[in-house]
Amino acid sequence: VRAFISFLTDFGADGAAAICRGVMLSIAPDAQIVDISHGVRKFAIREGAYLLWMSVPWMPTGIHVAIVDPGVGTDRRPIGIRTMRGDVLIGPDNGLLMPAATELGGISDVRVLSNTDWMLPRRSATFHGRDVFAPMAGHLAAGGGFDGVGPLVERAALVDLRFSEPVVRAGILGTEARYVDSFGNIRLGARPEDLEAALGKLAPGVALRLSIDGRVGGPEILEPVIWGPTFASVPLGGALLYVDSSGQLALGFNQADAAATLAVEAGRNVRIELL
Amino acid sequence: VRAFISFLTDFGADGAAAICRGVMLSIAPDAQIVDISHGVRKFAIREGAYLLWMSVPWMPTGIHVAIVDPGVGTDRRPIGIRTMRGDVLIGPDNGLLMPAATELGGISDVRVLSNTDWMLPRRSATFHGRDVFAPMAGHLAAGGGFDGVGPLVERAALVDLRFSEPVVRAGILGTEARYVDSFGNIRLGARPEDLEAALGKLAPGVALRLSIDGRVGGPEILEPVIWGPTFASVPLGGALLYVDSSGQLALGFNQADAAATLAVEAGRNVRIELL
Amino acid sequence: VRAFISFLTDFGADGAAAICRGVMLSIAPDAQIVDISHGVRKFAIREGAYLLWMSVPWMPTGIHVAIVDPGVGTDRRPIGIRTMRGDVLIGPDNGLLMPAATELGGISDVRVLSNTDWMLPRRSATFHGRDVFAPMAGHLAAGGGFDGVGPLVERAALVDLRFSEPVVRAGILGTEARYVDSFGNIRLGARPEDLEAALGKLAPGVALRLSIDGRVGGPEILEPVIWGPTFASVPLGGALLYVDSSGQLALGFNQADAAATLAVEAGRNVRIELL
Repeated sequence: VRAFISFLTDFGADGAAAICRGVMLSIAPDAQIVDISHGVRKFAIREGAYLLWMSVPWMPTGIHVAIVDPGVGTDRRPIGIRTMRGDVLIGPDNGLLMPAATELGGISDVRVLSNTDWMLPRRSATFHGRDVFAPMAGHLAAGGGFDGVGPLVERAALVDLRFSEPVVRAGILGTEARYVDSFGNIRLGARPEDLEAALGKLAPGVALRLSIDGRVGGPEILEPVIWGPTFASVPLGGALLYVDSSGQLALGFNQADAAATLAVEAGRNVRIELL
Repeated sequence: VRAFISFLTDFGADGAAAICRGVMLSIAPDAQIVDISHGVRKFAIREGAYLLWMSVPWMPTGIHVAIVDPGVGTDRRPIGIRTMRGDVLIGPDNGLLMPAATELGGISDVRVLSNTDWMLPRRSATFHGRDVFAPMAGHLAAGGGFDGVGPLVERAALVDLRFSEPVVRAGILGTEARYVDSFGNIRLGARPEDLEAALGKLAPGVALRLSIDGRVGGPEILEPVIWGPTFASVPLGGALLYVDSSGQLALGFNQADAAATLAVEAGRNVRIELL
Repeated sequence: VRAFISFLTDFGADGAAAICRGVMLSIAPDAQIVDISHGVRKFAIREGAYLLWMSVPWMPTGIHVAIVDPGVGTDRRPIGIRTMRGDVLIGPDNGLLMPAATELGGISDVRVLSNTDWMLPRRSATFHGRDVFAPMAGHLAAGGGFDGVGPLVERAALVDLRFSEPVVRAGILGTEARYVDSFGNIRLGARPEDLEAALGKLAPGVALRLSIDGRVGGPEILEPVIWGPTFASVPLGGALLYVDSSGQLALGFNQADAAATLAVEAGRNVRIELL
């Protein structure tokens, strides 16, 4: 079986991701590489962490390289995390890999990437993707054991990153906008169980009020938002609260861009009530 | 030989297409997958149909997955179409696959995708790409027979999609803008034979007048437009009517963006006359 | 070992690059293809040449197809260049391939692509990527010898493309902005040795003044610019002169977009002095 590598960065479309691919394939010519995305907003660690968390459960077990690394060239550590599912996550120790590791069954063991024989001979200060992360992934894909990357480190020493937990109160569910997808749907940080705990069991078609905190002024009030299974539950342009493909709550407009219309981005607080 | 899968969607660059790739490769690890485009405008079925029609003749015979699916979660059917060339087209029954099927020799037989053993165990209401279309393609790529996807359906029952035919009159060719490519060239819905039928046999260098219907006000008149084989037939910025790489008529400006300059998009009517 | 093909164009995301991939894989089903970029600015030969030059050293030895070809359909020749490293570069004879050829050890021999048996049977006037370059690459990847593409031509007859050399004077280094990467960092056309020759040996942290010629009015003066190894050498938003991952000088802002802020694009003259 060909080794599988997934690859996520904020490198954009200017050749940097391709250079990393070239390095991986120079070492492991037969690897099967899938680009998750190279369109993560520059330096947006939480956005990268969300996309990685969302994607890895659907990838074959393998090596997952993720690089959103504003600290490149500092003493932040490059790490490899082996998951209970058997994957190896490769990237900087800045929290980027943590939600994905949890999603893949949790952390088995962690190593710092320090074996210079598995790096490129000359290492730049600004492109560890090419010089450290890609060759490490290549050597793993070519059959090298995980202990080859470098020594074990305590998982407690890793930089953590957690998404905020929803706040469930009687009649109110408080959560956050975690991610805006390319359709403009706003993925939230709560699950249908949380909604039911706050508002009781809801029949499809129930009308809700959403309050979204702005950066200035008071919250944006959006009503009615229909609780429904699919976009066909509301008319064109209508607002829908639904369960997204990751099993989380999400707010979307039928065939329209909710996030652009509302000027909402990741990080905003969202409050959900019955109308 | 490795199974071949091409893949076209309106998913954009946020990881959804990669998730589908991951699902396909989890089932058929050795498949060769080519992304045709994930930049189709959201919900633009006709644009997706055009790109698929344009691309599939140049792809190896294989499986072609296309998803532009505003009706996801409704009762629109997921279908597979086997072509006379031997390909299988996979996607929603909304017309998206039809021009490509015709281009690949026509429809051999059609099946509805209903075998739940070839879908993911849990199916979301909003991401059939991941849960239905990708695993179906994976199972076909892994060697499953076409009859495994589900039962035959009548091809007459499919939602059709046809591009409008050109209107040939003495001295006037009427057609439509079907697609704007990334260079801003406007691909039209007529062929050089239609032009000759309307205007007679034209020598390279002949000057034409094009009238392009706007959404408001009268038509935009563009003259002269030179009939020629290549962009070198006109000066920089000059307007050229040429035979595009699909064998259709197209309007372009030499090293400039015709569609942006003229504010023309797909769907506009275009009238071509001698100047 | 699977044959390796890298692929760089200005085709954008509308299916044209995928069509070329389909043609290559129809001929060489097992080729490993890496897209370097299809986002080169339309017709920007120098930008394409820079990206190709930057990328090929990190690719496996193989076939590198590059197409930025404003002269398609004219009598500009399609060529193949074999490098001393053993690669074959495929593209138009407009200088695009030349810096990469030098980087790969220099030119071994050059052939014009004229073997019609290795082209598609029908050749359009506007899409040689599909009809000429892709099938040539496919036949080479499928094991065809380099002499199969067509007859030898004199390398002196090729269209050349050279980046401008830096100007070293006592106290002043003159160079040019060669490329703006996706982070907005401005890659310059000089190396650290040139800087040392002009300004003497500089300790990290030294403050510099950069003068960037505008298109109108006088030069833009930027000061202080800190000479340092990594972005962590300056505060957020601070200006850094550093050695980029290609070993060249570059100007960047820490976690901000220098090129957008300064409205600088490739081609501008840049003067570097001690502050």
